[in-house]
Amino acid sequence: MISFVIAISCFSLAFAVYLARQVIAKDTGTAKMQEISNAIKEGAEAFLSRQNRTIISLSAVLALAIFVLYAFVRTPSSADPVPPVELALWTTLAFVLGAACSVVAGYVGMWVSIRANIRTASAVRSSLNDALKIAMRGGAVSGLFVVAMSLLGVGGLYALLESLGHDPQKIPFTMVGYGFGASFVALFAQLGGGIYTKAADVGADLVGKVEAGIPEDDPRNPAVIADLVGDNVGDCAGRGADLFESTAAENIGAMILGVGLFPYFGLKGILFPLVARALGLLASIVGIMIVRTEEDGDAMAALNRGYYVTSLLAVAGFFVTSKWLLAVDVSKYPEAESAWFYFFLCGVVGILMAQAFVYITQYYTEYKYRPVREIAEASKTGAATNIIAGIAVGLECTAIPVLVISVAIITSYYLGLNSGVKHAGLFGTAVATMGMLGTAAYILAMDTFGPITDNAGGIVEMSGQPEEVRRKTDRLDAVGNTTKALTKGYAIGSAALAAFLLFSAYLDEVAHYGHPLEVVNIAKPEVFVGGLLGAMLVFLFSSFAIRAVGKAAFTVINEVRRQFKENPGILLGTVKPDYRRCVDIVTVGALKQMVVPGLLAVTMPVAVGLVFRMFGIGAEAVAAFLMVGTITGILLATFFNNSGGAWDNAKKFIESGQFEGGGKGSDPHKAAVVGDTLGDPFKDTAGPSLHVLIKLLATITLVLAPLFV
Amino acid sequence: MISFVIAISCFSLAFAVYLARQVIAKDTGTAKMQEISNAIKEGAEAFLSRQNRTIISLSAVLALAIFVLYAFVRTPSSADPVPPVELALWTTLAFVLGAACSVVAGYVGMWVSIRANIRTASAVRSSLNDALKIAMRGGAVSGLFVVAMSLLGVGGLYALLESLGHDPQKIPFTMVGYGFGASFVALFAQLGGGIYTKAADVGADLVGKVEAGIPEDDPRNPAVIADLVGDNVGDCAGRGADLFESTAAENIGAMILGVGLFPYFGLKGILFPLVARALGLLASIVGIMIVRTEEDGDAMAALNRGYYVTSLLAVAGFFVTSKWLLAVDVSKYPEAESAWFYFFLCGVVGILMAQAFVYITQYYTEYKYRPVREIAEASKTGAATNIIAGIAVGLECTAIPVLVISVAIITSYYLGLNSGVKHAGLFGTAVATMGMLGTAAYILAMDTFGPITDNAGGIVEMSGQPEEVRRKTDRLDAVGNTTKALTKGYAIGSAALAAFLLFSAYLDEVAHYGHPLEVVNIAKPEVFVGGLLGAMLVFLFSSFAIRAVGKAAFTVINEVRRQFKENPGILLGTVKPDYRRCVDIVTVGALKQMVVPGLLAVTMPVAVGLVFRMFGIGAEAVAAFLMVGTITGILLATFFNNSGGAWDNAKKFIESGQFEGGGKGSDPHKAAVVGDTLGDPFKDTAGPSLHVLIKLLATITLVLAPLFV
Repeated sequence: MISFVIAISCFSLAFAVYLARQVIAKDTGTAKMQEISNAIKEGAEAFLSRQNRTIISLSAVLALAIFVLYAFVRTPSSADPVPPVELALWTTLAFVLGAACSVVAGYVGMWVSIRANIRTASAVRSSLNDALKIAMRGGAVSGLFVVAMSLLGVGGLYALLESLGHDPQKIPFTMVGYGFGASFVALFAQLGGGIYTKAADVGADLVGKVEAGIPEDDPRNPAVIADLVGDNVGDCAGRGADLFESTAAENIGAMILGVGLFPYFGLKGILFPLVARALGLLASIVGIMIVRTEEDGDAMAALNRGYYVTSLLAVAGFFVTSKWLLAVDVSKYPEAESAWFYFFLCGVVGILMAQAFVYITQYYTEYKYRPVREIAEASKTGAATNIIAGIAVGLECTAIPVLVISVAIITSYYLGLNSGVKHAGLFGTAVATMGMLGTAAYILAMDTFGPITDNAGGIVEMSGQPEEVRRKTDRLDAVGNTTKALTKGYAIGSAALAAFLLFSAYLDEVAHYGHPLEVVNIAKPEVFVGGLLGAMLVFLFSSFAIRAVGKAAFTVINEVRRQFKENPGILLGTVKPDYRRCVDIVTVGALKQMVVPGLLAVTMPVAVGLVFRMFGIGAEAVAAFLMVGTITGILLATFFNNSGGAWDNAKKFIESGQFEGGGKGSDPHKAAVVGDTLGDPFKDTAGPSLHVLIKLLATITLVLAPLFV
Repeated sequence: MISFVIAISCFSLAFAVYLARQVIAKDTGTAKMQEISNAIKEGAEAFLSRQNRTIISLSAVLALAIFVLYAFVRTPSSADPVPPVELALWTTLAFVLGAACSVVAGYVGMWVSIRANIRTASAVRSSLNDALKIAMRGGAVSGLFVVAMSLLGVGGLYALLESLGHDPQKIPFTMVGYGFGASFVALFAQLGGGIYTKAADVGADLVGKVEAGIPEDDPRNPAVIADLVGDNVGDCAGRGADLFESTAAENIGAMILGVGLFPYFGLKGILFPLVARALGLLASIVGIMIVRTEEDGDAMAALNRGYYVTSLLAVAGFFVTSKWLLAVDVSKYPEAESAWFYFFLCGVVGILMAQAFVYITQYYTEYKYRPVREIAEASKTGAATNIIAGIAVGLECTAIPVLVISVAIITSYYLGLNSGVKHAGLFGTAVATMGMLGTAAYILAMDTFGPITDNAGGIVEMSGQPEEVRRKTDRLDAVGNTTKALTKGYAIGSAALAAFLLFSAYLDEVAHYGHPLEVVNIAKPEVFVGGLLGAMLVFLFSSFAIRAVGKAAFTVINEVRRQFKENPGILLGTVKPDYRRCVDIVTVGALKQMVVPGLLAVTMPVAVGLVFRMFGIGAEAVAAFLMVGTITGILLATFFNNSGGAWDNAKKFIESGQFEGGGKGSDPHKAAVVGDTLGDPFKDTAGPSLHVLIKLLATITLVLAPLFV
């Protein structure tokens, strides 16, 4: 069974390589286009390699800390899966492996993305369909690599431990470090990338559009290349790491819950998450390959078609997997005869929830609907009312997702409870999470489609292509904006479910270490305070993330102003600005700013656990910290993501000319630009970083649980 | 003992009347001043009477609903303090009494406030000290009335029930309706007042300052009177209702916890909260009376001096009360010999916490310190960066208050646990709340000082007084802004503590009804979902509150534009604008907008309780709803209050001329005005309404607890 999983992972990686070769073989356009594309490539690679260096140093320190804590500080427990020092070694190794796989997946995804952009730009000159396919397949490399690497890492580690003779029931506890490694890298990748992309964007816009009055993506703007680089490092590398973490952490968490049901399902229950994910990969490959469009067709419809096919295939795959792996021995458990069907339904709940999130996000962020129009309307009375309206929309848009999450959790929990398998309620919610994450590779492909088409648009614009070509890339770019927004909705929904699954796993783990934590009683003052501190971390972390963008953008603004002032030829178009200096400045700024919030996120749960351990209530206070932090994180991230998206599209709505209060350059448009700029760090820095934070809290507590009891 | 409480309440009321007469006897200035003051008076009274009509209708419906639910829907319990129909009657009566007392206290406070404003304006022409005293004593009428009425209501109801032969140990459970009545009125008073004040303010500023380019408080602006009315109905009536509720709910909650310790303290433990509050009233009276200043003195220092004296006297009063009422019978409980001293220390914790909140609020909202300066600095690059910086400050400023609340809860809990009295941990936190609320009357006097001086400034400005007089009122006005900000910090701190106390009382009450809810286990999916929904309510409610301001402001803007357009003489100063129409429009708009969020806040906890009762877990899910809702509410309210205050003062800092990037009218100033306008609904509508919401959730669950079990 495990070899089946590994085989499919390898097949998916091979397929990704095949797609990458296909993309790379395409035409790379004119010399002018190549010049721009090379500048983006250079900037993105420079940032990623510097960021990875920082991440690797931090990971090395943390790996050492984990080893020391596990080997020497922790009181050994008779429940340890292996002797203390060996456990320390495995946990550390798993951490390092998780971190390394995440770094590699992110790097490969971006490697292709910064090569697919120019090929998309070149193809769009002759065929929209070709361009769409290149962008989607380029994105698919990232999607497949991320999910397959995550699966291969977990599956490979499992196979390795099994071959070394470890007890399969204890292996998942030995592997928790893998998820933490993935989260740790994801946090910094998303934070660093998110700060980079928005600092460059805000900086470029404020001096370029507002002060100098030149259009977006104008080659005279010294920060324009940094802005294009940002799309890659934020949306592609950042979100890739985010979903890498989701799938990795979810796999391990679900395996831990599977251990609890060993009497029913045996080994199959533990491996079920991996097999389900493997079939999801195959479903995504099919979906990716059928994406195509007519020359005058609707590119969004083409992507949606692929998504529906993927979802349907995922449902079918889930049916097969459930029937195969979750059928119990009827002679022993006659009451659980149709349990597999109940769990299949849990998976369907997850897949439906993914669909629901996609719709809700569209409602709140597309200008066809009431919320964005309300913001555009409020722009008539100025920037202040535009922002008031946006904040109101952002706060409001948390309501329906919360209801959906609530219904999904309760439904899958009761399906699990009534499956006939005892104590399988939480396993039911875990299966829903697997269902939701089944389409992750496809979703991620759509997401990476965003920066590729965005970059293609920039290349077309800067290389002075004819108007007609620009219109086509604009259409692709608009689709890319929508898919990026959808992915964020999906990511937060899956983070919510994954987090719930992970803290169920945390409780199981604490129990495994002989301190059954059957309740997390928030009526106890210490536990209540733990929850209060968890919510506070989410606010404080968001504050740091948003401030980081402001600070880094400030340095960009000053640099652009300096270049304009010292060299008036730049604005006249006679002298080429110094793009590289802007890229360097944003790189240094973003990496500097990501460290403090990152360390806060890692150290605060540890501090809470250790302080409250002194009151003899460490594990319980940490559980409340985690749960209330998760709840607050879900809400605040939804607020940030959707309000940011809504501001962006309110501006686009006004620009589209369909708004009766004025078009581009009018007063309402100026007001809407202010909202859009505010929305940038909301939707691309704070929001996405919170997804990662939620899961990081879960994995860090999972790894350090043995320290708090 | 209870007659001692009632006597002090009556004395305080009488003293308030004495102060009111003293204020009323002062000179009322010139005819021009009177004309303006009369317009404000008329507008404020018209709003309040219409608002009260709405509130009374809603309360009548709710009173009926409570009666029906208690008498006919609820399953009678053997633990009922009195037979079902009688219990229904008492609960309904208590609700009506609580609502009525709150309405009366709010009305009287505002009655004096709208009369003190002109007298302050008149006095400032001859003496700053006189003006300060009039404003402070006018404010004190409100402060004393609110606290004394709340105490008299609770004390009187207790005395009545006792005289009818009810068992003193059961009386507190019969009285829970009183707190709910107070909360219900407070919610609408704060929402309606908050929407009114900011809709008028935002509307007046956007058309007046931004579009027409006329200064603030200019008589040519048709919305200027509505703006001045708003200060009274929002800051005075709204905040009065808020603290009325805090003290009433806290008194009853603490009495319920006192019942649990009956074996130790007997009746004294139940009445302790009332006596402690009564002595706090006396301390506040002394503090109020010593406020005075030199002609060129610092008015803020004078108010601070009064506050320190009040705090010190409150500590002394607490010492006496603790020793008197919480001394146990040493022959029976030798281990609890010094319990009273532990509880005295709990009270000191509360008083210190109040001080800490006052300092923290100053740090985050005064322009002497880093946060406000950071926002001013960010204004250099435009409105967007100004707002990004403000949001970052707002999110950050939640951290230290949370730490302070955490330390206060844990410290007072452990003091209670170690007092020698068994299970007295939660009682310890209750005593800390009493300590914090001990100075409520003084704090509220300082708060009402705000709208009085603000109005005085408006009257002086509009009646064309000489520059020197204006400078004096500006100084008082600036002090008023600070005191308003401090009160909000204090209110949220006390709401946090009071809420914790109230849900302890809720757990006691559920236990009293024979379904001991010893744990609120947030690891159960249903309970987790309850918490998630609680947090969601806070976001959704804030959304409605903020949107309400936007909508109501929009109607004001349109009206002002219409007047300017139809009558060009208004802007030339030759024709008087139609103030009354603006006042009417805001009144209607605010009252219309307050209904939906108000009903949402009332119905959602009931719905959660009834839905989850079907899963057999109603009381526990509601408890999580309440707790996580409270946590989220504390954070979001702090975010709203302080970011709003910081934006306001960043603008003032730029106007002050101390900012090196430009003064009034410069680009940074324009950017700062956008932030200030956004901050208006944050700090004066959403934030304060959330304080009330938190407590409403607590009292509503307390009243309806018998329905959920």
